[in-house]
Amino acid sequence: MIVLGVDPGTACTGYGVVQGDGRGPVSLVECGVIRTRPRDPLPARLHEIYEGIAELLARHRPDALSVEDVFYAKNVRTTVVLGHARGVVLLAGQQASVPVHELPPAEIKKAVVGTGAATKEQVQFMLTRLLRLKSAPQPSDAADGVAAALACLMTARVPSISGLRVQTRT
Amino acid sequence: MIVLGVDPGTACTGYGVVQGDGRGPVSLVECGVIRTRPRDPLPARLHEIYEGIAELLARHRPDALSVEDVFYAKNVRTTVVLGHARGVVLLAGQQASVPVHELPPAEIKKAVVGTGAATKEQVQFMLTRLLRLKSAPQPSDAADGVAAALACLMTARVPSISGLRVQTRT
Repeated sequence: MIVLGVDPGTACTGYGVVQGDGRGPVSLVECGVIRTRPRDPLPARLHEIYEGIAELLARHRPDALSVEDVFYAKNVRTTVVLGHARGVVLLAGQQASVPVHELPPAEIKKAVVGTGAATKEQVQFMLTRLLRLKSAPQPSDAADGVAAALACLMTARVPSISGLRVQTRT
Repeated sequence: MIVLGVDPGTACTGYGVVQGDGRGPVSLVECGVIRTRPRDPLPARLHEIYEGIAELLARHRPDALSVEDVFYAKNVRTTVVLGHARGVVLLAGQQASVPVHELPPAEIKKAVVGTGAATKEQVQFMLTRLLRLKSAPQPSDAADGVAAALACLMTARVPSISGLRVQTRT
């Protein structure tokens, strides 16, 4: 079971690819960030984010795409622009026919740490532990992408897992 | 000179295609709306909007894409979801290599009616007059798309027009 997790942002979109069966140990396949140039017009930046996610989807063929829900920044303009980035990420998932899961930040923290009020440091500590890494994924946007992927895998939101369960019942 | 104007929305995206040379009379080529099913998940709805705009861009090959800027609704959630729809519209323009112009609602009203504080009825009256129509484009989302296209054409924001001006100078 492979999950691609994404933390969308116009300047920097973090992502992480994790693998596991939902019960045993999970492992980190790849993580990183898609950076866009601040001086480029918004349509060009959205295109770069879209292309980056589409490339990851084509290369890893994940069973699910887990996208962090919008963080409601105090600045409404920032939040709306973030919505643009998130829109093209969801579109890339739809076009690759990958089930898309939208997880609120608190749900991601709860799945990874056990509490929705966990700090960034606690999330990074648990990521390092659960994925048996030497240090937390860097930069922090990449770690957020990994957390989104891990949360999706751990909460068994992946349809194939539910599918297996349904098959056992019938 | 052909301009495609778009008023993005997750439920209903209005569009209008207008043609003119920026000085003489302008004419309406086509207008309408892209409706999505409220029960469909957001990624599927974004895909429909994206496909609809991409199809219009391919069919009309406009010289510019004019997209109404986000209307800051009182409900932040609504505004953010609107950002998603706007994101895939801008992406479609970028992928078709069409120059994208983002116009705030007040600028559109000012270009069409003469004042940024114009009412919806005043805008529709001027659209009917300027495009020599029997009645205002329907539904109102389509009229908003037409207004965005017309404003872009009338404010000579189309790069080919500015390009011509630069060429005369050199």
